[in-house]
Amino acid sequence: MKVLKFGGTSLGSPENIKKVIAIVAKKSQNDQLIIVVSAFSGVTNQLQECSRLAEKGDENYKAQLDELINRHLEAVQDLLGAKAQSGLMAKVRLVLNEIEDILKGVFLIQELSNKTLDKVIGSGEVLSAFIVNEFFLQEGMKSNLINPLEFILTDSEFGKANVDMALTEEKIKPYFQNQKADVLVCPGFVSKDLYGNSTTLGRGGSDYTAALIAAALDAPELEIWTDVSGMMTANPKYVKQAFAIPQIDYEEAMELTHFGAKVLYPPSVHPVYKKGIPIYIKNTFEPDAEGTKIHEFPEPDSQSIKGISCIENIALFNLSGSSMVGIPYFSHRLFEALAQAKVSVILITQASSEHSICVAIDLEDVEKAKFAIEKAFSLEFKEEMLNPLYVETDLAIVALVSSQMKNQIGLSGKMFSVLGQNGINIKAIAQGSSEKNISAVIDKKQVKKALNTLHESFFLSDLK
Amino acid sequence: MKVLKFGGTSLGSPENIKKVIAIVAKKSQNDQLIIVVSAFSGVTNQLQECSRLAEKGDENYKAQLDELINRHLEAVQDLLGAKAQSGLMAKVRLVLNEIEDILKGVFLIQELSNKTLDKVIGSGEVLSAFIVNEFFLQEGMKSNLINPLEFILTDSEFGKANVDMALTEEKIKPYFQNQKADVLVCPGFVSKDLYGNSTTLGRGGSDYTAALIAAALDAPELEIWTDVSGMMTANPKYVKQAFAIPQIDYEEAMELTHFGAKVLYPPSVHPVYKKGIPIYIKNTFEPDAEGTKIHEFPEPDSQSIKGISCIENIALFNLSGSSMVGIPYFSHRLFEALAQAKVSVILITQASSEHSICVAIDLEDVEKAKFAIEKAFSLEFKEEMLNPLYVETDLAIVALVSSQMKNQIGLSGKMFSVLGQNGINIKAIAQGSSEKNISAVIDKKQVKKALNTLHESFFLSDLK
Amino acid sequence: MKVLKFGGTSLGSPENIKKVIAIVAKKSQNDQLIIVVSAFSGVTNQLQECSRLAEKGDENYKAQLDELINRHLEAVQDLLGAKAQSGLMAKVRLVLNEIEDILKGVFLIQELSNKTLDKVIGSGEVLSAFIVNEFFLQEGMKSNLINPLEFILTDSEFGKANVDMALTEEKIKPYFQNQKADVLVCPGFVSKDLYGNSTTLGRGGSDYTAALIAAALDAPELEIWTDVSGMMTANPKYVKQAFAIPQIDYEEAMELTHFGAKVLYPPSVHPVYKKGIPIYIKNTFEPDAEGTKIHEFPEPDSQSIKGISCIENIALFNLSGSSMVGIPYFSHRLFEALAQAKVSVILITQASSEHSICVAIDLEDVEKAKFAIEKAFSLEFKEEMLNPLYVETDLAIVALVSSQMKNQIGLSGKMFSVLGQNGINIKAIAQGSSEKNISAVIDKKQVKKALNTLHESFFLSDLK
Amino acid sequence: MKVLKFGGTSLGSPENIKKVIAIVAKKSQNDQLIIVVSAFSGVTNQLQECSRLAEKGDENYKAQLDELINRHLEAVQDLLGAKAQSGLMAKVRLVLNEIEDILKGVFLIQELSNKTLDKVIGSGEVLSAFIVNEFFLQEGMKSNLINPLEFILTDSEFGKANVDMALTEEKIKPYFQNQKADVLVCPGFVSKDLYGNSTTLGRGGSDYTAALIAAALDAPELEIWTDVSGMMTANPKYVKQAFAIPQIDYEEAMELTHFGAKVLYPPSVHPVYKKGIPIYIKNTFEPDAEGTKIHEFPEPDSQSIKGISCIENIALFNLSGSSMVGIPYFSHRLFEALAQAKVSVILITQASSEHSICVAIDLEDVEKAKFAIEKAFSLEFKEEMLNPLYVETDLAIVALVSSQMKNQIGLSGKMFSVLGQNGINIKAIAQGSSEKNISAVIDKKQVKKALNTLHESFFLSDLK
Repeated sequence: MKVLKFGGTSLGSPENIKKVIAIVAKKSQNDQLIIVVSAFSGVTNQLQECSRLAEKGDENYKAQLDELINRHLEAVQDLLGAKAQSGLMAKVRLVLNEIEDILKGVFLIQELSNKTLDKVIGSGEVLSAFIVNEFFLQEGMKSNLINPLEFILTDSEFGKANVDMALTEEKIKPYFQNQKADVLVCPGFVSKDLYGNSTTLGRGGSDYTAALIAAALDAPELEIWTDVSGMMTANPKYVKQAFAIPQIDYEEAMELTHFGAKVLYPPSVHPVYKKGIPIYIKNTFEPDAEGTKIHEFPEPDSQSIKGISCIENIALFNLSGSSMVGIPYFSHRLFEALAQAKVSVILITQASSEHSICVAIDLEDVEKAKFAIEKAFSLEFKEEMLNPLYVETDLAIVALVSSQMKNQIGLSGKMFSVLGQNGINIKAIAQGSSEKNISAVIDKKQVKKALNTLHESFFLSDLK
Repeated sequence: MKVLKFGGTSLGSPENIKKVIAIVAKKSQNDQLIIVVSAFSGVTNQLQECSRLAEKGDENYKAQLDELINRHLEAVQDLLGAKAQSGLMAKVRLVLNEIEDILKGVFLIQELSNKTLDKVIGSGEVLSAFIVNEFFLQEGMKSNLINPLEFILTDSEFGKANVDMALTEEKIKPYFQNQKADVLVCPGFVSKDLYGNSTTLGRGGSDYTAALIAAALDAPELEIWTDVSGMMTANPKYVKQAFAIPQIDYEEAMELTHFGAKVLYPPSVHPVYKKGIPIYIKNTFEPDAEGTKIHEFPEPDSQSIKGISCIENIALFNLSGSSMVGIPYFSHRLFEALAQAKVSVILITQASSEHSICVAIDLEDVEKAKFAIEKAFSLEFKEEMLNPLYVETDLAIVALVSSQMKNQIGLSGKMFSVLGQNGINIKAIAQGSSEKNISAVIDKKQVKKALNTLHESFFLSDLK
Repeated sequence: MKVLKFGGTSLGSPENIKKVIAIVAKKSQNDQLIIVVSAFSGVTNQLQECSRLAEKGDENYKAQLDELINRHLEAVQDLLGAKAQSGLMAKVRLVLNEIEDILKGVFLIQELSNKTLDKVIGSGEVLSAFIVNEFFLQEGMKSNLINPLEFILTDSEFGKANVDMALTEEKIKPYFQNQKADVLVCPGFVSKDLYGNSTTLGRGGSDYTAALIAAALDAPELEIWTDVSGMMTANPKYVKQAFAIPQIDYEEAMELTHFGAKVLYPPSVHPVYKKGIPIYIKNTFEPDAEGTKIHEFPEPDSQSIKGISCIENIALFNLSGSSMVGIPYFSHRLFEALAQAKVSVILITQASSEHSICVAIDLEDVEKAKFAIEKAFSLEFKEEMLNPLYVETDLAIVALVSSQMKNQIGLSGKMFSVLGQNGINIKAIAQGSSEKNISAVIDKKQVKKALNTLHESFFLSDLK
Repeated sequence: MKVLKFGGTSLGSPENIKKVIAIVAKKSQNDQLIIVVSAFSGVTNQLQECSRLAEKGDENYKAQLDELINRHLEAVQDLLGAKAQSGLMAKVRLVLNEIEDILKGVFLIQELSNKTLDKVIGSGEVLSAFIVNEFFLQEGMKSNLINPLEFILTDSEFGKANVDMALTEEKIKPYFQNQKADVLVCPGFVSKDLYGNSTTLGRGGSDYTAALIAAALDAPELEIWTDVSGMMTANPKYVKQAFAIPQIDYEEAMELTHFGAKVLYPPSVHPVYKKGIPIYIKNTFEPDAEGTKIHEFPEPDSQSIKGISCIENIALFNLSGSSMVGIPYFSHRLFEALAQAKVSVILITQASSEHSICVAIDLEDVEKAKFAIEKAFSLEFKEEMLNPLYVETDLAIVALVSSQMKNQIGLSGKMFSVLGQNGINIKAIAQGSSEKNISAVIDKKQVKKALNTLHESFFLSDLK
């Protein structure tokens, strides 16, 4: 039994779906397959945009929604014969009508909760699974649709719910024991909370769905089929010379995904890592390319680092004051305030003894964080025990990733000297003793230059 | 009116004291002088050692104490005529007898509190002030002894008390208005808490005494007379080419002192900084050398950095766990635990999103910190939500200091590449956006090499 | 200038509104009047019910809404001549249409945020102000409608927003300077956050609107017109012998309102208390009855207590464990968890040394509180350091209120002995040294008996 | 095997010790006995006083110490024949000389740490065990001295150390397996920390020593021999009619001991409670009196309560403020501050919704608590968001204890009405739902009256 996940671009058009079927057909000769599908390429974003338009009271949401509806209906027509169409069409219509109603409601109250948004954006995967399954059937496979709401259970953090691991694992095993079809098609991304509400697993969550199933069933491997031939040494959008990493260990993979590599959703690594199940990143459009194998003991190679990651849209907060030492529990009140405001801290650095502390967060969280900090220390700001909060936006983090960092002298030297020689200003640096990366905060404008510079130094020069 | 502080080596021998008198005699022609004195060179350490021996029940404390007593009695004989001697001798004896009694008590109960230790180690300054003042009188100056216990008031944190700024300032002004002598000799380092107990201001606290007086009296300048000709670009013990920094701003001076420069006690900068009073670091043995001037707007020079500092005896704590994210209030509980255990955090770095955090502390605090962290997260360790605490000792921090850091591209590159080229392994790095330093944690064994390497790159190459 | 607030029952029917006009007409001869109005009697509840029905997807919301619409339209017809009607009708329709649209949206997405609910339930006051003002005009008064959204500014805690006192006071003064009409009609309850969203001030918030205006304008008095002749010695629903309290001080009034007296919304006392402005509680249906005067120094009377208050629908949490002492920061973690869950603590009692703690909260908060406590101490429950959380529901608090409690020996004795003699079981007791009440937690079923028993003992017996 | 503990008064004089031997001789016919002894009556206090005098530099400590020395030497002479004396005398002298040295040390440095105090005050038990054991031997019993420092292991909280339960249990079993003598004499109260320092278990700690041994060895019972014939219904010092309680359950016993009953040290109950081992409280001077049996299911009796306890020397803190609600995390910051200052909270009561909170603590902790609270809320006090801290001293707590409280209607009524009728002013009341007591804070001066009043109502009237 194997678990394969196909991403949005792999399902971007009827043609692409045909490529998927070729891959699946071949593999299903030897194993029962569980096929986890994303929404068609771009659909989740479109659903989100429609929702946002409706929230703003903008009537254009209807036009956008119509476009999206047509796209699915056309896919049905393209892929399926008339007979198969009619049954499917009814099911697809049902889903689409529900979305229409919800969006009308959003439009009327001009408000959009994460709970409602989850209902809307989760439908992309449901639609794609309907269509793909029907297509498999038409092509003669013994395919069956399965419903992840029956086994992926989460808390009620709408927008990005946390999976109840124990319960989910317990539900998956008996569920799949009863599934005898050769191919099982499962919508990714969607889940259910303990009160029966729809939730979603975060953007990229289809990977997570696949990983949860693979781990619970002790699958021999997990395949993530996407539109690039593996996890890349750097973002190929910026770095033309970026190439696929043949092998990488789980922790490096987590670092790379955390710091921006989009091919794999970070939480997906954890469940399979625990079971030692290897992950293959494969390219639907070049199925014969080797891709990337993520496993515990990759063979050593000649590269000093595994990859260069990057998070754009970062803000830096700097909190300082000559009498910070005198503020009782300064650090813990700071992190308490941020935790309560649900602001995720990406990087912390404090280099002088409790005179200033520097925290990098996602640009989206700036207002929340500012509000939380100013509230938590309102009296201290008033008494001028703290300097006014200093916030810098339009920044990015670039980071070298390797689990062999500790043993390599000169890595940071090389990193910062090439950045310096290329005129890239470093705003903040963090590297900890057991960490798998060295991170630098730079201007967002210089990201492309920085990534190319680093890639050239750390990869191409090695290759020469 | 001027405030001059003379350090221990300036008072290391009768000869040296004669050099002090020459400086004082010359300056006192124009101004009333307040002369703050440290204990004779090495005396504070000897008092501390005697105390520690007595605490361990080691009878050798007596021999050491006798040596120390003799040294003071000999200084009296060397410096003073027979007539002056007898009166002074009685006073000196009184102080010494009290120390003898206390140490006997410590010997008997084999316990030494910070409170008792403060009583013992503060006597060095009292003795030196007695002797210096008597010598000034014999040399014909109108000198008078003043008592800092009447105006330097602190809390009861024995060992390193915190000055009650408002109260101290309020007491200093009227006290000095009544002092009409040309030269006022004041023991540094010692103070009193609000219950009348002796306290001390921390090692190097004589500087602080002088700074508090200078600030409260709005003195035009503060002179710190020591045995080097200024604040050095690096620790001359390790770096032969280190040279005195002509001018430096307050914040840079604070960074350098915080990170190891011993010529000035860090808290001393703050009170004079607030008043804009310049500090001169001068050399008793080369009174004509220019020394270092610390003030608000130093003239620009050709150097990219001001100095290289270093803290030896550092330990790194690494706390990590794949489910750290799931531990409510992780960061704030960590810093709460450390704050309660009175562990000062020197450097923090966290480079991956809440999977691990790395904290540098003083080696002395390792046990306390370990205990505090293990207690605070005992259940999480038990449930294996956190990996076992990873502690690395025998480390040091080296840091480049400059308040112009932000505008210089390539500084970190140069720093880390020269360190790398010289085989120095970097354990952790921290640099924040508004900080005045870039800090690297390295092996303690490599400190000398690191400092020389950096000094050569950042200073000598500039000079060529 | 005077501020008068008329409650919902005073505006319950066209007839009643005519009574209001008589009162207003008389008073407006001497002063400019600011008339703050609630929604028509029952309207806020109906709006809330409609909203809840729509949220549940229950189509009956429409019928209920129609009823409510008709009621307003009928009031317009009853009160106003044909001419006045048409203009007003258009305005009323506008408001009603907006509610219809919003409720349809709620129905479609089956979700109701506090933000949306605030928009809906605030319209009751807007409608009643429209109608009352128009009626005043028709009756020949120089009346003008004013808009509280221009001066009552709050944070964004929808459902019960917190007023930004400084900003609100600053806005009120110039706003009213420009209002020259004899009578100014202002909808109560509604406000605006700093982003322009509608907020509401909590059930009963019209009192608060009136108090804020009175305080900001330094009005000589604030009159609260309701359907009882003052603040009562006990809830007359339960206690037939309850009578109006002639005079009472601010703190007693706050206690009584906090503990259930519905005639005045608790937060309303604070702003006028600070300014020393007296509050009169008056009865629209017996305008000549004396009512209650709340002011700083009420004349002494023969009663030992001022009133008996009661909060129904209370739950008690009991957290205990023989090793609670061993749980670091037990109490502060408990209250932190409750604070974060936004659970308001009504009563705390801990009588044995840290073996158990007992907390009374509103019945509505039970689930939230339980979840928060179980999460905060999950590991401690798992390790059986704490006993399972013990929750008792269907309870009530009865309390004696007096600011002269301290000087009266035997008050608690009398209270608990009459309760005991009447078979009322006491679950928990709390009385603090500077508190103005003695509180007992009892079974909800015994509330009526308890109140009558206490009232008889403390009031009637005194009167005999 | 049985565990018997004899208290100080049982060992108050040579005559009394002879009574002890009679009891022991009789019981040792059937069982191996473990005899845990306190210091001779008054000795621990005298040792403490000597220490305090020495700390103050008062030479009278010597005279007091001599008296104490003589008392022990005289006991040796009285009890033992010349032959036995000489060997014992040498051992006793050794202990006494060590105390003399330590106190001289304390005198010289005028400082007394809890660590040093523990060394001094623990010697009382060591001396008494030496003498008692020798006397047993002389009387022909097969007696042996055992050393609790080898098995009672604690943390390093000098003055009142916390036992490491797991380690202590693990050490006790093998230690006693090797002890074959008929009677084993063990000094109570003293223990050792993990670094080998002497610690003590808190005043009354000999009970705890006995309980730990009984529990670890699964003894069939634990006998506490003291100078009263059981746990009394109230403190007989105040209440002449107080009588011994025949049977009581563990939880009631804990409540009574917590709230002042001196016959049993509160922590002693816990280890035997867990094992279900009954405790007998017996009177050395009336060995045939029944005493009190503490066990799980006492037979029901006609009394409504079990006893009346009392804690004298209580202080009440009242923290209030009209905007307490506006102070983020008010309650949890309060309890955090108290926990950090190591202030134990005896009673909490909060009766109005977050406007004031009332906390009872030990009078000794007032300064610490005040300092901690004022520091934690310094800015809030400055901004007048909180009223100045209100502290009331010279108070006491009286409490009714019963584990059947829940089922008895009218208990609180009776309690408070008799208090009221007797002119006793109630400052604060606390009773929680699952608590075993109702507590009232009253004036310390009225304690005797209150106790007698309550005792008469709850006990004598029942007896009539």
